[in-house]
Amino acid sequence: MDDFKWSKTEKKISRSAFDKAYERECADIVKNLNAKVKKIKNPKELWRVHDFLTDKREDIDEKYDYRYSKLILVFARLIKDGWLDYKDLQGLAENKIDRIESLMTIWNE
Amino acid sequence: MDDFKWSKTEKKISRSAFDKAYERECADIVKNLNAKVKKIKNPKELWRVHDFLTDKREDIDEKYDYRYSKLILVFARLIKDGWLDYKDLQGLAENKIDRIESLMTIWNE
Repeated sequence: MDDFKWSKTEKKISRSAFDKAYERECADIVKNLNAKVKKIKNPKELWRVHDFLTDKREDIDEKYDYRYSKLILVFARLIKDGWLDYKDLQGLAENKIDRIESLMTIWNE
Repeated sequence: MDDFKWSKTEKKISRSAFDKAYERECADIVKNLNAKVKKIKNPKELWRVHDFLTDKREDIDEKYDYRYSKLILVFARLIKDGWLDYKDLQGLAENKIDRIESLMTIWNE
């Protein structure tokens, strides 16, 4: 999608932001999982918890794509979903942040 | 596998024993799941819990086969694994119990 160049520093910032978002989202899944497991009262509910985890795993696997050609889109989506904040991306070149902001504007329209 | 005839009463006893074993085994999975979820410290461990549930579900789906042609084998396996007791099968004809016992003997040899 994008043909941006990524400096060594930007790659470091990106990796760290990406990992942070991944850990935040997984921690949220664990929190939800904990609450769901406590409420299980029968086998049907047990398998519903398994379905929940299967869906989340597929979603996460699809979303967390660390290819530089996809990263702007990934970051925009993570900000939109609340797993990343602009301040986590501090240090990225302005044109990259601009691109993320335009994506957000399009999505919010 | 078997060509036993099942009376109405035996069908009732079998269904009840089968459901009881299924509920016991699922309750045990929930217990293990609870302990595992509490110990999750990172995303890797979260997905290991998902793998655990996937394995259990496959195992359960394969094991709990309520076809009368398979039921003796199913009951023998459930007794062997501790999810069923002979007293849960009280009321089944003697030849069925004998067949279960022979399977147990073969497996224990």
